Amino acid sequence: MSPFLTYAAVFLGTVGPAAVQALDNGLALTPQMGWNTWNRFGCDISEDTVVSAAKALVEHNLTAYGYEYIIMDDCWHADSRDPDTGAPRANTDRFPNGIKGVSDQVHALGLKIGIYSDAGKYTCGGKFGSLGFEEIDAKTYAEWEIDYLKYDNCFNEGQAGTPQISYDRYAKMTKALNATGRPILYSICNWGEDGPWNFAPTIANSWRISGDIMDTFDRYDERCPCTSVIDCKYAGYHCAMARIIDFAAPVLQKARKGAWNDMDIMEVGLGGMNYDEYVTHFSFWAMLKSPMLLGMDLTTMSNETLSIITNDAVIALNQDPWASPANRQWKRELPDGGNIQLWQGSLVDNQFVIALMNASPKEQTVDVEFFDAFFDQGKTYQQQPYRLFDLWQKDDKGKWGKDLGIFQGSIPNVKLG
Amino acid sequence: MSPFLTYAAVFLGTVGPAAVQALDNGLALTPQMGWNTWNRFGCDISEDTVVSAAKALVEHNLTAYGYEYIIMDDCWHADSRDPDTGAPRANTDRFPNGIKGVSDQVHALGLKIGIYSDAGKYTCGGKFGSLGFEEIDAKTYAEWEIDYLKYDNCFNEGQAGTPQISYDRYAKMTKALNATGRPILYSICNWGEDGPWNFAPTIANSWRISGDIMDTFDRYDERCPCTSVIDCKYAGYHCAMARIIDFAAPVLQKARKGAWNDMDIMEVGLGGMNYDEYVTHFSFWAMLKSPMLLGMDLTTMSNETLSIITNDAVIALNQDPWASPANRQWKRELPDGGNIQLWQGSLVDNQFVIALMNASPKEQTVDVEFFDAFFDQGKTYQQQPYRLFDLWQKDDKGKWGKDLGIFQGSIPNVKLG
Amino acid sequence: MSPFLTYAAVFLGTVGPAAVQALDNGLALTPQMGWNTWNRFGCDISEDTVVSAAKALVEHNLTAYGYEYIIMDDCWHADSRDPDTGAPRANTDRFPNGIKGVSDQVHALGLKIGIYSDAGKYTCGGKFGSLGFEEIDAKTYAEWEIDYLKYDNCFNEGQAGTPQISYDRYAKMTKALNATGRPILYSICNWGEDGPWNFAPTIANSWRISGDIMDTFDRYDERCPCTSVIDCKYAGYHCAMARIIDFAAPVLQKARKGAWNDMDIMEVGLGGMNYDEYVTHFSFWAMLKSPMLLGMDLTTMSNETLSIITNDAVIALNQDPWASPANRQWKRELPDGGNIQLWQGSLVDNQFVIALMNASPKEQTVDVEFFDAFFDQGKTYQQQPYRLFDLWQKDDKGKWGKDLGIFQGSIPNVKLG
Amino acid sequence: MSPFLTYAAVFLGTVGPAAVQALDNGLALTPQMGWNTWNRFGCDISEDTVVSAAKALVEHNLTAYGYEYIIMDDCWHADSRDPDTGAPRANTDRFPNGIKGVSDQVHALGLKIGIYSDAGKYTCGGKFGSLGFEEIDAKTYAEWEIDYLKYDNCFNEGQAGTPQISYDRYAKMTKALNATGRPILYSICNWGEDGPWNFAPTIANSWRISGDIMDTFDRYDERCPCTSVIDCKYAGYHCAMARIIDFAAPVLQKARKGAWNDMDIMEVGLGGMNYDEYVTHFSFWAMLKSPMLLGMDLTTMSNETLSIITNDAVIALNQDPWASPANRQWKRELPDGGNIQLWQGSLVDNQFVIALMNASPKEQTVDVEFFDAFFDQGKTYQQQPYRLFDLWQKDDKGKWGKDLGIFQGSIPNVKLG
Repeated sequence: MSPFLTYAAVFLGTVGPAAVQALDNGLALTPQMGWNTWNRFGCDISEDTVVSAAKALVEHNLTAYGYEYIIMDDCWHADSRDPDTGAPRANTDRFPNGIKGVSDQVHALGLKIGIYSDAGKYTCGGKFGSLGFEEIDAKTYAEWEIDYLKYDNCFNEGQAGTPQISYDRYAKMTKALNATGRPILYSICNWGEDGPWNFAPTIANSWRISGDIMDTFDRYDERCPCTSVIDCKYAGYHCAMARIIDFAAPVLQKARKGAWNDMDIMEVGLGGMNYDEYVTHFSFWAMLKSPMLLGMDLTTMSNETLSIITNDAVIALNQDPWASPANRQWKRELPDGGNIQLWQGSLVDNQFVIALMNASPKEQTVDVEFFDAFFDQGKTYQQQPYRLFDLWQKDDKGKWGKDLGIFQGSIPNVKLG
Repeated sequence: MSPFLTYAAVFLGTVGPAAVQALDNGLALTPQMGWNTWNRFGCDISEDTVVSAAKALVEHNLTAYGYEYIIMDDCWHADSRDPDTGAPRANTDRFPNGIKGVSDQVHALGLKIGIYSDAGKYTCGGKFGSLGFEEIDAKTYAEWEIDYLKYDNCFNEGQAGTPQISYDRYAKMTKALNATGRPILYSICNWGEDGPWNFAPTIANSWRISGDIMDTFDRYDERCPCTSVIDCKYAGYHCAMARIIDFAAPVLQKARKGAWNDMDIMEVGLGGMNYDEYVTHFSFWAMLKSPMLLGMDLTTMSNETLSIITNDAVIALNQDPWASPANRQWKRELPDGGNIQLWQGSLVDNQFVIALMNASPKEQTVDVEFFDAFFDQGKTYQQQPYRLFDLWQKDDKGKWGKDLGIFQGSIPNVKLG
Repeated sequence: MSPFLTYAAVFLGTVGPAAVQALDNGLALTPQMGWNTWNRFGCDISEDTVVSAAKALVEHNLTAYGYEYIIMDDCWHADSRDPDTGAPRANTDRFPNGIKGVSDQVHALGLKIGIYSDAGKYTCGGKFGSLGFEEIDAKTYAEWEIDYLKYDNCFNEGQAGTPQISYDRYAKMTKALNATGRPILYSICNWGEDGPWNFAPTIANSWRISGDIMDTFDRYDERCPCTSVIDCKYAGYHCAMARIIDFAAPVLQKARKGAWNDMDIMEVGLGGMNYDEYVTHFSFWAMLKSPMLLGMDLTTMSNETLSIITNDAVIALNQDPWASPANRQWKRELPDGGNIQLWQGSLVDNQFVIALMNASPKEQTVDVEFFDAFFDQGKTYQQQPYRLFDLWQKDDKGKWGKDLGIFQGSIPNVKLG
Repeated sequence: MSPFLTYAAVFLGTVGPAAVQALDNGLALTPQMGWNTWNRFGCDISEDTVVSAAKALVEHNLTAYGYEYIIMDDCWHADSRDPDTGAPRANTDRFPNGIKGVSDQVHALGLKIGIYSDAGKYTCGGKFGSLGFEEIDAKTYAEWEIDYLKYDNCFNEGQAGTPQISYDRYAKMTKALNATGRPILYSICNWGEDGPWNFAPTIANSWRISGDIMDTFDRYDERCPCTSVIDCKYAGYHCAMARIIDFAAPVLQKARKGAWNDMDIMEVGLGGMNYDEYVTHFSFWAMLKSPMLLGMDLTTMSNETLSIITNDAVIALNQDPWASPANRQWKRELPDGGNIQLWQGSLVDNQFVIALMNASPKEQTVDVEFFDAFFDQGKTYQQQPYRLFDLWQKDDKGKWGKDLGIFQGSIPNVKLG
């Protein structure tokens, strides 16, 4: 049982949106999937951290579910660039075979390798940044056979404040990556400043929308102060999972094939939430078409965690070719605190996903009117025969029929704060 | 009976504002009227869609009421520009005679033809945009004998964030259109970003003020998140009709002859609202001097719909030579939800329009004090003899008199949400 | 009896702020005083409007109180500039002797003459603007022996959005005026956009802070939508008198000798408020160091109006050499609506002005603690002997003493809305 | 007894953040400590003011606690720059030996000397500013052997509005200071405009975050109008001590070694607050890693004041090599007004500081759950043995133990308003 219900409803007949791929590097036609060092290891990474994660990913057969990128986040760096060439280089103690050595091992496992840099003077961890070094950095990444770049926003020398200024700074790296001739998935991380959902779709495959995630269900933290990501001038960090869902709600429509809203690396399996909460977390990242990046220690992952991240029905929501993020139909504040939410999204072949979320400390019983669930689709759909499946119970909830005007479901409580 | 009351009050005597035409192309001296493909057909358009609508418009004698533009919205495009010349070109399957072929047929019916493009890399539907191609596109439109350009805002490469940046981007097309020598009504659609009511009156004939309209009376939808269009950084879409009226309220004064606030294509006849609600919708678009663009399928329009869009008294409010949008005198939130509103506007020949709107689920009886209704005009008008007409009942409500200090009217309920 | 009490409190001893004159044209060392055509006559002005006002001002001996500028607002213009020279020129029907003819007559009366233009393509009334014509316009004004320029913000071609952009646009005229060699008081009117209190003190003698005033005490009007002038993106118009006081409160400290916050032309005598309300209006414009520009018809002014605008004690608050605007010490919302406010300001010679304002529909009795009234001055002043004068009753309220910890005053009601 | 409790909790074991020094001038690796003329003397300063303060600082043995900078704030200036060279020069009446003379005397006492200028046309006190004179000013300061520059924001000629514009203006002085070859601590004071926590860490050693402090515990003052410093367009002044703590809360994480959030010169000893309130003030400036600048008259300081500013345990919080500002874990509004707050921060050697603040007019008894106090550290820390010390009572509160799930403390009231 989980703190939300996810159904797929299948209808007869077909309609479909026009699909446009925004960035023409051919990558991320569905949201990228993989693993990133940061949430579990922070700055404390080495060749072993990366390679052992890659091996664990293969051993757990996660490639069969679509996970393919192993991403080295911040702190792979030497203390300085090569003084002669200006090229970036790795810390030789922790990366004795260099980044190319890691890259080769990851590739040998049939996976792809990602790296991290920052569109500023320093990275957030205080290493050398790429601002002003875009060309040599992209060229070096290509030589290292890098497949993915996460590109951060610390110490940006004031180059922010209008979409134009931010676009120019991030587009420099787009151009440099394209010039290498190697397809490199470009994942920008400017925390939503200046509205990347508006300026980034033609220059990046994904863009972070908020400050960094915190491993808790829903807790206000002063370090993540904005109430909305629209025109947030201070994204911060320590943003609870449910707050990131709130942040995403209005900007979801900006996603396109090849260009996704990035809700940050997932916390599933890191210990701050319970099973039901992680199921909710995983499901929403899937439905809202966020990149699906794991963040726990793959080498010590529990079976419970493995069961969550390998729900193929939920992953299919994320990788659906329709590429249409679900929308929140309503969010109801509850008199005793917390709220419940109804989400709905379109899938291929006339299927829809419907989800109820309970972000309150009590179990809730909710009636969902078909008028609300299919408001976007209109009267025809509100009165059509359909068939329901529960994506977590793997339960076929019903036969084709047209009498049901209301869903009803009971949703367990979560711990708030 | 309708969910609002619209009266015209006629007084003795005359006053009048100075009139200035902002953009000197001589067009849209009153708000443009016509029909647009988008609300009903979206991307699914062809020569037949456009030409059959044009024929239906003529057959229903709508030209007699002022409707004259037939506007092809997004998706008339081929997959790419002409590889040799860079010129735009139409999809040859759906437009076998090209845009010029459509243009000729529409002109032959005595109508004018409009087209759509986007001040970005792609259109919102993913077709090629005009950013960087302004001159060749304007030149080609003129060769196709286009009379009207709707110019959108998707994929704008970060060229937004200050009025200056947005002005520069949109003024490039103004210049290109002017250079063709053909008068082309220029309707910009940047969803209100950076305040087009401030920057656009000298470069465009109209400007959208919000995200796209949704065919419902008044329902909060998270995809239209701003509470005001002033400095809204994310216009979104799915904006209910009554929310667009709220959005328009503070910026109405910025309209000028030749330069109008565009509240988006109307939803009248598309099925999401009832008769009373569409009457309200149509009346407000008229009173607030929005362009009056129909959006339903003209070939299958009901008689009820036809009766709404051919109310000549209401259309006269829109096309009044005084060019003065009505103002909201008050908006009262009701204890049980919803609100009522009083609007008033000046017309030629010492006439005024007065409207009451009921945006609540209950019928409301309202007393309107003359002090409020004629607050702008002052004591003289508040005490003068007048005569009332009901513009929907076509009812002459009274004789000249000066005793009436209060209107009273009962307004039926609407369905909210 | 008035809806507020104004006392001057005199203490022993002296302290004083350093005084800096921001703009070095030597003008407006105290706020400018005079008369402007707009509030009463709008666009309907002529040589006679201006000259008869000037004569009336002299006849009423208003020069003795400091009123000296006669300002022609919008619509003195011909339909176009001189086609050969590009120079501005007046409407010959309404100004048969040209602006120079008016200027000569006004100067002959011992007064100074002001003119109006707009830092845009058109003026707000649709006449030719000065954007791009700064040099020839300033030169022509100097030839016409103009002493004052009000410089508006309509149709500004998107040149707004950051202080830098606005500064550059308005500083062009500063430079042009300076280049003429004639001292011309420069009064900018960009409605507070981009914070002129920050960017304008070194380029202008005064700057408007809000949308245009409306002749009413306190009424919310949707056409003046911002709740604060700080970062207001849409100043609008129809701003009630008490709202402008609210708007001014936080930015008052930015005034300097030669550089003032302009609260707009006064409405005193125009008929929308009663005597008590106009007394409040006049007193606050004085205390807050706004320019004191009359707006009624001087030729038909009532004795009551004359008595208000010639209160020399109140005018002395405005022209005090200390140049220190009063501050609001508190504003208390009342349970039945409206509010009361305590203001205090420093004057020369260890005098202070204290004012209580009642913006509610009921008479209010208020106790004012000396701790609050002299919070800025600290304990010494809170316990010192003082002497009080009532500036409207011209009543000496008391002898030197130090026992009084509390003022008490009864303030009559006002009409709200 | 003080209105808050400050504990240091020591745990077994060690973890630690990566440390990055943002600005490479090698200064302010911990927050700067010293004394500044402004809060007590304003514009009324002279050689004697500065030198006698320096002597008093030495006599009170404050150097042993880390206080080392003597900073001359505004108004040391002559009326104009040197007309021949353009170099800055001091007022010869008040500084008969010039700034170099003061500098020599301060250096002879083993202290460092700071100066003030403004990135604008004038300083806030109306003296000549440095905008456009960065190079000659920095060069002159170096010749005067200046060790510290406070750089203000008045009369900035509109050069603000985006981080880029502000960065460029302030970075000009960074470059000029660096070019002198003399290490000069660079303390910018743009009141938080355009987010210096984002743009300044690579160009300055500290940045003010708000308008000027007022010597009162917590009182709303309209002259400090913003409710948050994030995107505040009008910082103002007269900001109460507790409001500055509120302002700092979300931006604290942006501090780095060599780059600090500046909460303004302290008011300790100036008379507006009582002992308990100043203890709170001093403790928070320490915990939040603000520069610790004294502002009272050092020559007449009371023993009570001296006892506060020489609490070495509290100073150690500020100068802790971990360089990690405390965070607010919660702030609870109280039903009768005011609030209580829980703060926690990490120190070296597995120590933590925990503080409770009572900003209400009543004594409060508070239970603090370990889950909250160590939320950031997680379960391990929430259940570990620890030992407590009270930093003001110098009281060892307990032995190692692991049974304590809750702190309990009684906090005395403060005077509000």
